[in-house]
Amino acid sequence: MSSSLEMISANRSFGGWHKKYQHRSSSLNCEMTFSIYLPPQVDDGGKVPVLYWLSGLTCTDDNFSHKAGAQRYAAALGVALVMADTSPRGDGVADDADGAYDMGLGAGFYLNATEAPWNSHYKMYDYIVDELPALVESVFPVTTKKAISGHSMGGHGALTIALKNSGVYTSASAFSPIVNPVNSPWGKKAFAAYLGDDVAAWSAYDTVELMNQGAGKALPILVDQGLDDSFLAEQLLTDNLVQAAQANGVDAKVRYQPGYDHSYYFIASFIEQHLIFHAKHLVGSA
Amino acid sequence: MSSSLEMISANRSFGGWHKKYQHRSSSLNCEMTFSIYLPPQVDDGGKVPVLYWLSGLTCTDDNFSHKAGAQRYAAALGVALVMADTSPRGDGVADDADGAYDMGLGAGFYLNATEAPWNSHYKMYDYIVDELPALVESVFPVTTKKAISGHSMGGHGALTIALKNSGVYTSASAFSPIVNPVNSPWGKKAFAAYLGDDVAAWSAYDTVELMNQGAGKALPILVDQGLDDSFLAEQLLTDNLVQAAQANGVDAKVRYQPGYDHSYYFIASFIEQHLIFHAKHLVGSA
Repeated sequence: MSSSLEMISANRSFGGWHKKYQHRSSSLNCEMTFSIYLPPQVDDGGKVPVLYWLSGLTCTDDNFSHKAGAQRYAAALGVALVMADTSPRGDGVADDADGAYDMGLGAGFYLNATEAPWNSHYKMYDYIVDELPALVESVFPVTTKKAISGHSMGGHGALTIALKNSGVYTSASAFSPIVNPVNSPWGKKAFAAYLGDDVAAWSAYDTVELMNQGAGKALPILVDQGLDDSFLAEQLLTDNLVQAAQANGVDAKVRYQPGYDHSYYFIASFIEQHLIFHAKHLVGSA
Repeated sequence: MSSSLEMISANRSFGGWHKKYQHRSSSLNCEMTFSIYLPPQVDDGGKVPVLYWLSGLTCTDDNFSHKAGAQRYAAALGVALVMADTSPRGDGVADDADGAYDMGLGAGFYLNATEAPWNSHYKMYDYIVDELPALVESVFPVTTKKAISGHSMGGHGALTIALKNSGVYTSASAFSPIVNPVNSPWGKKAFAAYLGDDVAAWSAYDTVELMNQGAGKALPILVDQGLDDSFLAEQLLTDNLVQAAQANGVDAKVRYQPGYDHSYYFIASFIEQHLIFHAKHLVGSA
């Protein structure tokens, strides 16, 4: 598997290394890029746990790599960061006919599509849950301990993936997540295309629905949501998460942050606290 | 002057505000953008000193705003950040005939051009030294205390501007600065176009030459330079700065950082130390 891994760039960062790779993905059936930050703790032959980061609509692995400032805290805490892309890529991969930003390329929604033409490449769930960690753990000096976080569509991905894989992730967190996509315009549009008209199938990829089905009883969750986020009322529906967690006894701390919006300025302002939250669980359960 | 100032965006960041503005520049004779970070210390009616940031070739005010992570330290230390653009902009502004990245748009070199066609807009020296601080100090809750820093071409700008304006800046710092442009390919190309063939005129915009002329005796300077910077040997010529500072009794601390390159990963890794350096002088001389 590692034989197809090609390094695109390597930058020294906070005493560690930020590296970007290209590889052939078997689950997505295309070439993919991802980035990894390896903290200085690996220099003496040590292994570190991993925080996976899932980005939002239109993003690649670069947005978080460039804008979040997370490397500083990963270096201090001894945690590796893995930044994934947001959809399959390449000439043969289907895209929205109108080039919409919220469907197709850059908008994989971290699910396994069942409908044509999407089902030949759009298997981001399998990629994030199985293929990418297997690759990372086979090549880099990391342990199998992992946590997951993300932003917006990637916050949806992080929460649903952690909820659906009990015991695999020590903790999950999100910034501005789409917590109830079956009731949001972004989610309805994407799920109808990727998963078809059977709405019952959608709930397998919905944070609120999964909690109502009993998932997440042993999963520590941290969510930050800006109160000046223009997507809050229509697309993100954060109050539905607060209610579902409370009704089902899920340990989810949801913090509304006055004045903050949907941007990476918001993520950068609070990513330190997310890294500390995950490090506590990653190390505590090591 | 403030009547022409138009806010393009405002993002909450580390308890303060990161704002981007457009305004008509009289010195550059075109519309310009800049960004300012106001830390939370201004919320109670207080005023804070300012660190001006000058970016490198091809950049705008956005690169540092998005990638350096400096807002965290500015918020902690109570310092405003002002990020400038790197050249005049707009349809009427001359650009390199071949669209080269190191001449014309995005490559103003923080000087006042004397040669046509550049001399009708390329007055970045006047803009950074006079017009922008006057505007900032008339509109925002800042004191007249200021320091200056920058990267690559912007490191050249920060050092030369501070050296040429004794007593105006409490301190100067730079990442990967072009310290001796009269002897570097980038500098020779730009200075010949902007300033003409009289090489004697070039030394007014050269850090090493200015130090050899006696400037900087009372200016604290901090420089970080990555040893894996691909521009180091041919373009940056950092050793010439070390020698000039030593020969002329200038208080310049030049640190070579093993493994680091020319990127914003390098800047992000050390910007905290630059902010602390400037805050010490900005506050100590208040």
